[in-house]
Amino acid sequence: MAVTDRSHTAVLDARDPLAPFVDRFHRPAGDPPLIYFDGNSLGPQPRAAAGAVQAEVERWRDRLIRGWNEHWLGLGDTAAAHVATLVGADPADVGIGDTTTVSLHVLASAALAASQGRPDVVTDPANFPTDLYVLDAVARAAGGRLRPLGGPPTPETVAAALDRHVGLVALSHVDYRTGRLHDLAAVTAVARRGGAWSLWDLSHSAGVVPVDLAAAGVDLAVGCTYKYLHGGPGAPSWRYVRGELADRLDSPIQGWFGHADPFAMEPTYRPAPGVARFSTGTPPVLSTAAMVPGLAVVVEAGIPAVRAKSVALTSLAVDLADAWLAPLGVTVATPRDPAHRGGHIALRCADARRVSAMLVQRHHLVGDARGADILRLGLSPLALRFVDVHDGMRRIADAIVRGDVDRHTTDPGPVP
Amino acid sequence: MAVTDRSHTAVLDARDPLAPFVDRFHRPAGDPPLIYFDGNSLGPQPRAAAGAVQAEVERWRDRLIRGWNEHWLGLGDTAAAHVATLVGADPADVGIGDTTTVSLHVLASAALAASQGRPDVVTDPANFPTDLYVLDAVARAAGGRLRPLGGPPTPETVAAALDRHVGLVALSHVDYRTGRLHDLAAVTAVARRGGAWSLWDLSHSAGVVPVDLAAAGVDLAVGCTYKYLHGGPGAPSWRYVRGELADRLDSPIQGWFGHADPFAMEPTYRPAPGVARFSTGTPPVLSTAAMVPGLAVVVEAGIPAVRAKSVALTSLAVDLADAWLAPLGVTVATPRDPAHRGGHIALRCADARRVSAMLVQRHHLVGDARGADILRLGLSPLALRFVDVHDGMRRIADAIVRGDVDRHTTDPGPVP
Repeated sequence: MAVTDRSHTAVLDARDPLAPFVDRFHRPAGDPPLIYFDGNSLGPQPRAAAGAVQAEVERWRDRLIRGWNEHWLGLGDTAAAHVATLVGADPADVGIGDTTTVSLHVLASAALAASQGRPDVVTDPANFPTDLYVLDAVARAAGGRLRPLGGPPTPETVAAALDRHVGLVALSHVDYRTGRLHDLAAVTAVARRGGAWSLWDLSHSAGVVPVDLAAAGVDLAVGCTYKYLHGGPGAPSWRYVRGELADRLDSPIQGWFGHADPFAMEPTYRPAPGVARFSTGTPPVLSTAAMVPGLAVVVEAGIPAVRAKSVALTSLAVDLADAWLAPLGVTVATPRDPAHRGGHIALRCADARRVSAMLVQRHHLVGDARGADILRLGLSPLALRFVDVHDGMRRIADAIVRGDVDRHTTDPGPVP
Repeated sequence: MAVTDRSHTAVLDARDPLAPFVDRFHRPAGDPPLIYFDGNSLGPQPRAAAGAVQAEVERWRDRLIRGWNEHWLGLGDTAAAHVATLVGADPADVGIGDTTTVSLHVLASAALAASQGRPDVVTDPANFPTDLYVLDAVARAAGGRLRPLGGPPTPETVAAALDRHVGLVALSHVDYRTGRLHDLAAVTAVARRGGAWSLWDLSHSAGVVPVDLAAAGVDLAVGCTYKYLHGGPGAPSWRYVRGELADRLDSPIQGWFGHADPFAMEPTYRPAPGVARFSTGTPPVLSTAAMVPGLAVVVEAGIPAVRAKSVALTSLAVDLADAWLAPLGVTVATPRDPAHRGGHIALRCADARRVSAMLVQRHHLVGDARGADILRLGLSPLALRFVDVHDGMRRIADAIVRGDVDRHTTDPGPVP
């Protein structure tokens, strides 16, 4: 059966051990039903999320301040335990809270403050913009500078960038544009040998790519929870600090939730042991509650199975792009070897923003564009069927064939 | 009619122009109904809050990533406009996001970085603990130190503390323990004359005490939204930067939501104009949505009316404490002149933590304790009736008369 044959995907769906998980998520509405290829921007909603939020709305209504002791103070730990399972960490080494930007700032600042005269930060110039902005400010505040790698992060490019001024190597595990997956363990080892700490942003890999932070000896990591972890819009971030390291680092933000005894209301700051010292203030309960069901579903499915399906979905998308889009001048920009890519694929496509807008406005398909010539398709393994990938790629091809990319298509505007 | 006469409160309630607002909030459940005197920790829930949250849960479900353009990117501005109305600010000078701790850190750090060699911070040693912790770290990072006032914040104590090393005077408007209200305008003027910027934490005053940041010439302010603003547990904070000042300050956290064009994904940071530059990362949508109805209700009632009722409620509580509690050795620790107190009253009471626990466990009254000898009663003016204050004070008196404060009462634990 040809890969372009729709019945091929029925076979794949029938064999998919994760097929029952599709029903754990709301299907996008619409007629014809929307096909959603933007799971790497905002993951689809778990069916259990609404109830989880409603429970905390009712707790606020009925229990008022007592909700903190009865439930809310433990909510972050519940979420942290799930994240720990997904990224190969001891639950005690994971904390929840704040935006990913704040978590990155806090951990990077703490690392440089303890780096003993090594104030420079090595990063990938193709890193996500907020990472570049945060790291630049942190390096300058420490009296150092941000040093760009000479190419995509590899053991070789990172080794070449290290010297005695570099205290931190801060990278994203998956390139947010191309989908390239970097070698976290090998790069971490190179950083360590070079005397620098490692800080990974796992926003585009946690929940979809196998990660073993402890085994890799990663020092610090952060990630968002609203992509493959299905945590909801603006759900709080997570942060990881290697167990032995946490007590040697001081948070630049000395908040009461990071105090050893927050409710003793002591006049003097004493940091909590471990990663808890990086907590800041009273955490957003409703947004934290919303993220727990998504984490729980991914934990239940298990990363090996999720990764296997993710590879199969992106491989199908690549094959269909080769068959249908390459003749139209739209090519695959993501590494072809699935071992070197994450959960999304990138297509090199002229006028990508307008194509993306046209797809959502006329073809009932949501992907997104990054830059002028990258169309991104983020495939949530738990919420998508193989037939959805088939139908979605067909819609993209039909749209381009019909040539209805015209200048009247409205720009879709920002897509966080 | 004696102030201790319950029918006196019926008269007050009948005359109360804000009486209809009581029904905008859920009444605490219980039999007998719970009396809730902890509105300065977590405000009661507006009836409109559940629907506001549910709408965003549905938007996530149905609109997915499109929710950002269609609604979520403007959510903070809606909340900011309400806060601006309540604190006497131009809406363009107010931003929403992060925890109060992070907002305080960001504004204090930015101020000291621009203070031209004045790295010390003057504060009240009785300030809220997270404020002390944050300010200590910020001052030390700038090469300065935290300098405690010699007494409660007044123009005199602040003037005495200023010298050419002080770049920032950072205070809370209302003392979180005693309820004392400080003279924001006079202290701000003294700070300015002394060459220091002013940073006010309005967590215990916004929404219950008249504040006119613009008229007072305040430079910087922050506040939480979950007390008198009824924003829900862990609702995001707000921050204010005087219009002319914002573009001279740089955020220590260079996040993409603080970028002049976040979705252009530029490699280099360019701060947004105004207070928006202090935004960090993707904001927690559900927790932000939950806070809008509370803000709207307070705006609708109007601060003059809210303050008038607040003064009347705390005055009644003081009168009843004098009548019923003083003979039992429990005295009023809050200033007796209502012009010098905020929305809560403090009672000096031996074994306050155990009394507080006993009240909630056996007498269906929630207040809280701060330290060993302060019992706090936070009176939400919009959600409470005068008769509730009468009944609550009666329950406190009955409990102490009956002497059932015993060592078997469970400690209530932390109360954020």
